Amino acid sequence: MKLFRKLISLEEALKIALAYAKRTEIEEIAFDDALNRVLAEGVYSRIDSPSFDRAAMDGYAIRGEDSFGASPANPVILRKRNRQGEKENETVVELREGEYLPIQTGMPIPAGSNAVVMLEYTKEKGAELVIFKPVTPGKNVSFKGEDVKKDEEVLKEGKTLRAHDLGMLASLFKRTVKVYKSAKFGIISTGDELSDPKESIEGEKKIADVNSYVLTALTGKIATPYRIGIVRDDYEKIKHAISVSLESDCNVLLLSGGSSVGKKDFLADAVEDLGELMFHGVAIRPGEPTGFGIVNNKPVFVLPGYPVATIAAFELLVRPFLYATHGVKEKRSKIFAIASKKVPSAVGRTDFVRVKLLCIENEYYTEPIGVSGSGILSSMTKSDGFVVVEENKEGVEEGEKVGVNVWDW
Amino acid sequence: MKLFRKLISLEEALKIALAYAKRTEIEEIAFDDALNRVLAEGVYSRIDSPSFDRAAMDGYAIRGEDSFGASPANPVILRKRNRQGEKENETVVELREGEYLPIQTGMPIPAGSNAVVMLEYTKEKGAELVIFKPVTPGKNVSFKGEDVKKDEEVLKEGKTLRAHDLGMLASLFKRTVKVYKSAKFGIISTGDELSDPKESIEGEKKIADVNSYVLTALTGKIATPYRIGIVRDDYEKIKHAISVSLESDCNVLLLSGGSSVGKKDFLADAVEDLGELMFHGVAIRPGEPTGFGIVNNKPVFVLPGYPVATIAAFELLVRPFLYATHGVKEKRSKIFAIASKKVPSAVGRTDFVRVKLLCIENEYYTEPIGVSGSGILSSMTKSDGFVVVEENKEGVEEGEKVGVNVWDW
Repeated sequence: MKLFRKLISLEEALKIALAYAKRTEIEEIAFDDALNRVLAEGVYSRIDSPSFDRAAMDGYAIRGEDSFGASPANPVILRKRNRQGEKENETVVELREGEYLPIQTGMPIPAGSNAVVMLEYTKEKGAELVIFKPVTPGKNVSFKGEDVKKDEEVLKEGKTLRAHDLGMLASLFKRTVKVYKSAKFGIISTGDELSDPKESIEGEKKIADVNSYVLTALTGKIATPYRIGIVRDDYEKIKHAISVSLESDCNVLLLSGGSSVGKKDFLADAVEDLGELMFHGVAIRPGEPTGFGIVNNKPVFVLPGYPVATIAAFELLVRPFLYATHGVKEKRSKIFAIASKKVPSAVGRTDFVRVKLLCIENEYYTEPIGVSGSGILSSMTKSDGFVVVEENKEGVEEGEKVGVNVWDW
Repeated sequence: MKLFRKLISLEEALKIALAYAKRTEIEEIAFDDALNRVLAEGVYSRIDSPSFDRAAMDGYAIRGEDSFGASPANPVILRKRNRQGEKENETVVELREGEYLPIQTGMPIPAGSNAVVMLEYTKEKGAELVIFKPVTPGKNVSFKGEDVKKDEEVLKEGKTLRAHDLGMLASLFKRTVKVYKSAKFGIISTGDELSDPKESIEGEKKIADVNSYVLTALTGKIATPYRIGIVRDDYEKIKHAISVSLESDCNVLLLSGGSSVGKKDFLADAVEDLGELMFHGVAIRPGEPTGFGIVNNKPVFVLPGYPVATIAAFELLVRPFLYATHGVKEKRSKIFAIASKKVPSAVGRTDFVRVKLLCIENEYYTEPIGVSGSGILSSMTKSDGFVVVEENKEGVEEGEKVGVNVWDW
């Protein structure tokens, strides 16, 4: 049995892995297929939006100046524009002093007018409008370009597109959009002890393959996971599976299980044998036996066998890699919470701590999950998120504020 | 032109709409298809997990008591269990006093043993193990049922399933799981002024249909959106479109546009004509001209024409309805932030305020978006989330803590 030669820090590990995060190619897709995709171009508007001055309220288009001084006791009275002999196209109309025209939200305001007076402050009698309150010029009008100006950059490269971003693309008639292609992540679990829960039932001494399912779910929001399944603890079989996966169209490979230092820990050896093992052993807990290498010019992650350790290694190392690969620029927003209990941690090691959140009067508090250990999957399902205790920190003191990454993501 | 008869409060509106939120039926699906679905059953474990006492580290299985008193100066020496004549099945072995056996992470520990001593604290010479540090009984062992006990409820009804929850289901060999079916939400935009951005290009006086795309993206995470498209401002056509949609398999209908009080605001009238209009006009800003009715025993939302107002009405009214329909029990986690500027709001009205978040030294601050108004879609795309100013509040004071719903969701 061998020991880890040397643990490298998470920071070093990230630096090495991210140097191999090759940005995916760009594809152009329909804007309404782009939800949660990452923009590969800055989107500039080809038009002013709105493209004309329009009413922002139902009411009457007037020249704002004409209403100055109006009050309930001393209302201003305007006359309706007589449109006899004019075309029934509102934009031809030019309001003159003292004139008004009824208007609906979204309609172009007549030339000459510059404000809309709301129904509430008026009374229309025949062709006369009694106004009880002045409106300043510009009131209740959406001016051309007020939302977006022509040639303005409305969405930046690297933005993950949300529902309202698709709405913005729609509003600008931007039918297609350039996004980063989804990379294909091959996923392999290894271990003689593993059974596929899809193909077998529970039983004595059986251990389910959890990792390939968890990694599929974790990568699937942004990448295209390809679950290859379980490979037995056989050095040649493992080497073969890695080779075959990388000769296919997988861009990245996630291996898990057997990345510890036991006798049958073939994964790191196989990566070294087939290509180059860049590191093996990272000062994170759980997740220490994590490795990374390059085979066939493609990145291969060697993840721990224990599901909790694999999730930790995923969140700390693979997720940043996944984001770099897909051009994600946004940072996950953390919730800050007050630690309700001391969390011990050694300097020189990054800790991945599962916590529950308790919200009391607009303030969050972390409640540590009682049981821990990387064999305890319920420490994940009972938690609301995780805290990263950085390697230069000697744990978290009670009462200290910590950033929690919630599982919403 | 008519005015809204009476605005009802958001609370009243929610109470009315939620009374018609019919929970969807239950379906049983493969556990690995259930990401982001909502559990319709409490999941109880049929097994202990782990299902046997197993090593949590690579090392040597021993009786912890045998190592007591060990130190570098005064090590304890154990002898390897001679397994000649025994079956090569580790579970048959029963360690006697003074014996050890090598063991790997995940393997069953031999009967009689109760601890695993890590490689680091030992030296194996032939059939002898030199131990330099004592281990307490139980150390480095995952005991049967330590993660999950048989018959324990591991996941509760109403939980939205995350990656690690699927991992838990896998670990328990729970192949299928009961979840709430996805409801079909029909989506119709109305308005003579609208063009479908998928079918036309930008041009003078053109306004794109934004709402049907935004509503499709917003509902799609949990429901099944069915984008019916644009219907012209023609009373009979609108009535016909509503009837046809509700005679089909749509469970809920989202109409938008023309829900204001202008001349052509046929939507609420059509709902009243075909069924029962439960309310029209809610004291929210933006989103005031929101209505709700029942046609063919199916809920119909009448949403504003302006995209920002529709998004506000969606978040305040439709999202809670969507969650109730699908059995979602979890609350969206908010980020608390300090308001860096006063936000005025009238008592008696709920405000939906877009904000940007600024994070300075573990504290978030809200930065209001300069431009507002429901015509300004860029107020959404520039924001990180929104704050709800409740109706009993006279705005938000500078320095006050507010809850921000971020767009991550």
